[in-house]
Amino acid sequence: MEIRFAPQGVVGQAAMGETILAAADRAGVAIERVCGGRGSCGKCRVLVSGALSEPTASEMRHLSPQELAQGYRLACQARALSDLDVTVPDASRVAGVSILTGGIANHYPIEPWVTRHTLAVPPASLEDPVSDLDAVQRIWAREGRGGLRPTLRAMRALPAALRDRGGEITLVQVDGELVDIIPGPPTGCLLGIAFDVGTTTVVGYLLDLESGQELAVASELNPQTRFGDDVVSRIQYAGERPQGLDELQREIVGALGRIIRETTAQAEARPADVLAVTIAGNTTMQHLLLGVSPAHLAQAPYVPAITQAVSLRAGELGLDAHPDAHVWVMPSIAGWVGGDTVGVLLATGICEQDELALAIDIGTNGEMALGSRQRLITCSTAAGPAFEGAHISCGMRAADGAIDAVQIDHAVRWSAIGGSAPRGICGSGLVDAIAELLRVGVIDPRGKLLEPAAVSAAGYSALAEQIRGEGRHRAFVIAPGVQLGQRDIRELQLAKGAIRSGIEILMKELGVGAADVRKVYLAGAFGNYIRPESAVAIGLMPRFRNAELTPVGNAAGSGAKMALLSRAARARAAALPAQVEYLELSGRPDFQEQFAEAMLF
Amino acid sequence: MEIRFAPQGVVGQAAMGETILAAADRAGVAIERVCGGRGSCGKCRVLVSGALSEPTASEMRHLSPQELAQGYRLACQARALSDLDVTVPDASRVAGVSILTGGIANHYPIEPWVTRHTLAVPPASLEDPVSDLDAVQRIWAREGRGGLRPTLRAMRALPAALRDRGGEITLVQVDGELVDIIPGPPTGCLLGIAFDVGTTTVVGYLLDLESGQELAVASELNPQTRFGDDVVSRIQYAGERPQGLDELQREIVGALGRIIRETTAQAEARPADVLAVTIAGNTTMQHLLLGVSPAHLAQAPYVPAITQAVSLRAGELGLDAHPDAHVWVMPSIAGWVGGDTVGVLLATGICEQDELALAIDIGTNGEMALGSRQRLITCSTAAGPAFEGAHISCGMRAADGAIDAVQIDHAVRWSAIGGSAPRGICGSGLVDAIAELLRVGVIDPRGKLLEPAAVSAAGYSALAEQIRGEGRHRAFVIAPGVQLGQRDIRELQLAKGAIRSGIEILMKELGVGAADVRKVYLAGAFGNYIRPESAVAIGLMPRFRNAELTPVGNAAGSGAKMALLSRAARARAAALPAQVEYLELSGRPDFQEQFAEAMLF
Repeated sequence: MEIRFAPQGVVGQAAMGETILAAADRAGVAIERVCGGRGSCGKCRVLVSGALSEPTASEMRHLSPQELAQGYRLACQARALSDLDVTVPDASRVAGVSILTGGIANHYPIEPWVTRHTLAVPPASLEDPVSDLDAVQRIWAREGRGGLRPTLRAMRALPAALRDRGGEITLVQVDGELVDIIPGPPTGCLLGIAFDVGTTTVVGYLLDLESGQELAVASELNPQTRFGDDVVSRIQYAGERPQGLDELQREIVGALGRIIRETTAQAEARPADVLAVTIAGNTTMQHLLLGVSPAHLAQAPYVPAITQAVSLRAGELGLDAHPDAHVWVMPSIAGWVGGDTVGVLLATGICEQDELALAIDIGTNGEMALGSRQRLITCSTAAGPAFEGAHISCGMRAADGAIDAVQIDHAVRWSAIGGSAPRGICGSGLVDAIAELLRVGVIDPRGKLLEPAAVSAAGYSALAEQIRGEGRHRAFVIAPGVQLGQRDIRELQLAKGAIRSGIEILMKELGVGAADVRKVYLAGAFGNYIRPESAVAIGLMPRFRNAELTPVGNAAGSGAKMALLSRAARARAAALPAQVEYLELSGRPDFQEQFAEAMLF
Repeated sequence: MEIRFAPQGVVGQAAMGETILAAADRAGVAIERVCGGRGSCGKCRVLVSGALSEPTASEMRHLSPQELAQGYRLACQARALSDLDVTVPDASRVAGVSILTGGIANHYPIEPWVTRHTLAVPPASLEDPVSDLDAVQRIWAREGRGGLRPTLRAMRALPAALRDRGGEITLVQVDGELVDIIPGPPTGCLLGIAFDVGTTTVVGYLLDLESGQELAVASELNPQTRFGDDVVSRIQYAGERPQGLDELQREIVGALGRIIRETTAQAEARPADVLAVTIAGNTTMQHLLLGVSPAHLAQAPYVPAITQAVSLRAGELGLDAHPDAHVWVMPSIAGWVGGDTVGVLLATGICEQDELALAIDIGTNGEMALGSRQRLITCSTAAGPAFEGAHISCGMRAADGAIDAVQIDHAVRWSAIGGSAPRGICGSGLVDAIAELLRVGVIDPRGKLLEPAAVSAAGYSALAEQIRGEGRHRAFVIAPGVQLGQRDIRELQLAKGAIRSGIEILMKELGVGAADVRKVYLAGAFGNYIRPESAVAIGLMPRFRNAELTPVGNAAGSGAKMALLSRAARARAAALPAQVEYLELSGRPDFQEQFAEAMLF
């Protein structure tokens, strides 16, 4: 059944009897919770119309009878019994920047690489003075299992654990390595965390590894931002300062640690309970996290130090988790197509499908992949941060007060995130605005903002009054204090031109046209909120008339979650780069030509 | 050919043309050197008679013509061309406690687990933008080699190393793990260090892993001694204080680090150059080093936490070596038969021989092994520290001023280590003295020191004058200020009784007599210096009339060196405990009986 979320405008799917929170998480609608969705914090209140399960005791406690009568419910408690319309009040939205914490996920069985087993070990005697470890291994082997590889910490825990509960112990293994020995039967959850490490934003998803349930989500601005907004400036910082690389590494490891502390606190657990970590980031972010120099990514031939998946212990990175937790960093495909794109490929499953599909992940860079199970090509274009609201005079991130949708006929109508007074415009609002201004003729196909007289002459006198200034300083007022200047339009032309020419070159390389594409996945915050018609109207992408368009939210994060929960998914991710081709656009003579053309509307 | 070392009284073997230093090291005669035996420090001067190679340039530089004429040579330069008599002057003996740093060694090929390989890696290009690691692995695979498993540090070193010398790099691997990547061809030695971690003394042998050459030796009193002289008091300390185990662990790791710094400085290298470490110690010392509680070793059924070999990274232990160096800790056989005994078994090779052999390693505890390739049994007896000079009124370690040999007819003759005035008596002197006093009848077979009158009556009036005091306070004066009291004799009776009853029970268990034994190996400092006739005279061991007696010096240390230099030797050591039986004497009703009898002379 369908759940329509407002004000996000996202439509999610729910199974009969599933909680609204589960559906929201999957759809990428961020709803606040502090208790991990257990009904104890009362933070996830939403306003619902449609058929729902009866209010639970927890809802009775957190909501007044009046509120219940108005339709307020707790998203973690109320279960869908029909299609629903759900309004998420400001207070229930995840604070700060609006970040997609959901996404789609392919179907892999839950088969985590962290496991636990309980054994009863008989005591040693003078006749059989077997060592503690040998006694455990003997029972382990008797159950038909292989060797045990204890870490030093597990060895240290062994003697006391073995004697605390009369020989009953629980062994905790990560990838076959024995990392902990706990007296008695299992208690609590086995925890893991999946990270999407973006250039701008870092998101962590704390999961119960056995059930696959998401217990908590938290995000933070990437603190490396203070050393440079974009990838290239950070590569420069790392290379030019003696301690630059160390500083950048410490910053990001510190941020991941804060997110681990925050999410484990929400789930009433400790960082040391986190036993598995996956990381998806672009190639540079992954290098910086490992403390490996990304210097050679910044100049031709754009060579990364490492593209294969890396597995190491949390203690080696200095990450605040169980010191013997395994941290698995996604493989990359090339210097500018990183582990985040591998996450997108894993989550969308386009490498397993026979149908021709396109995946686009738009951030500061636009990575895209076109193809199918038979052949898949990826490339990256430097779109710049315009879609994230940067380098745009009134641009801002998709946070409270950002205009995120615009409609224009004879007047301008807009909506702003959080329902508050507009403070600026974000990527999806920008694309909408330009698409609409093009349609009514306020902007011409070369990107020029017309004179008020010309607009008036075309019958849009109300819009003409919104035009201020002259020449390069001309601007169109969208809302009080929020305007779109000629230079902003030029920025957007550069950005959309880069994405569009990437798509065109990929189609050319595969020998296909837009009509051949059957599926289009739009990943990332921008991809999730953009209106496809507007994207086509400005020429960001061609019209895929035979394709189903699917916004997939934070697909890179979804890929990281899948690799965390499933050995098979992780193995698939590790093998993906070898199956995927990479196209270096800077090496192609036709790219500049294509780009010049794609900049026009 | 034979080399007789004075004042040690040790006879070593040398191949034609071998240096005196090499023969001395093997024989367990500690000769000072600071340069690692390269002829640059001039510290190893010895006085030699016999045929030698011509003086080298280094000897010309360090010795005057007069000294050369007198017979002074540098032990690291002079090569044996005949049997030799070598006197090691005080100044050339290793300073401080006299510790055996040599020992015998079985023949295993040198095949270290640290290796290095040089590769030429072609640069990446826009057409082939391969990552640094993949570029290296491609060349590596082309040479028919398997996967490379780089540590995080190696990954971090890669980008700069690859570009420093036009793609020529040297890969350094430890047990197949890629721990370092160095620009250009190999430089310097590959270093490893083997440790014998005794309850009282710690010795480290720094080896060139490719040549097998010993570059430096250093030793230190085990700093845990300040928390208790013996194993049991340290187990108590670890168990009773909240931080006790941590303290003991830090102390021993600190001592190993100091020895690494000292030996690497001697060899003009750095601690970070040490890539492999082996550890042989008794079971408790190995537990304390790992920070694993030895609490259950102190009470029946005397269960260790760990007996199998342990391999970990130096960084995990906090050891001052290359952080990714592998530390390999010998396996143990039981709670009181540890990795040091495994080292003795490996070095003597008695598990590979068809002949019945006995190995005895006497320290604070006496570990012994009897058997052959077919069947081998080990046990441990609490001899106490009498043979190390402790609990003996004038007892001292085998250091300068210790009486280490005694002969008595009508007068007492003695020699003291270092040729200086006697300050006390060490184990071998003690055994000599009691054997001689028994022979002339000053001590009776029950261990009683006779009255002067009785000694006089037996015709030893000069010896009678050396007897002082009465009853339990009676004592025999050996040298000015050094006397042997009635209680000292009782201490020695307990110690030798423990060893002897262990030997008897092992023989009984195997169903053999002393005449069946073909080889006896005496390990440890005491075993190296004791006069076998005296040991038999006091009943420490039976007369093995058909056996060859071999002092094998620090055989535990030799075993650790072998495991360091040879994968095959290390694998053999790891497999040894499964082949060896352990006899728990405290579980045997006949032990107390045997012990009571063995206490008599």
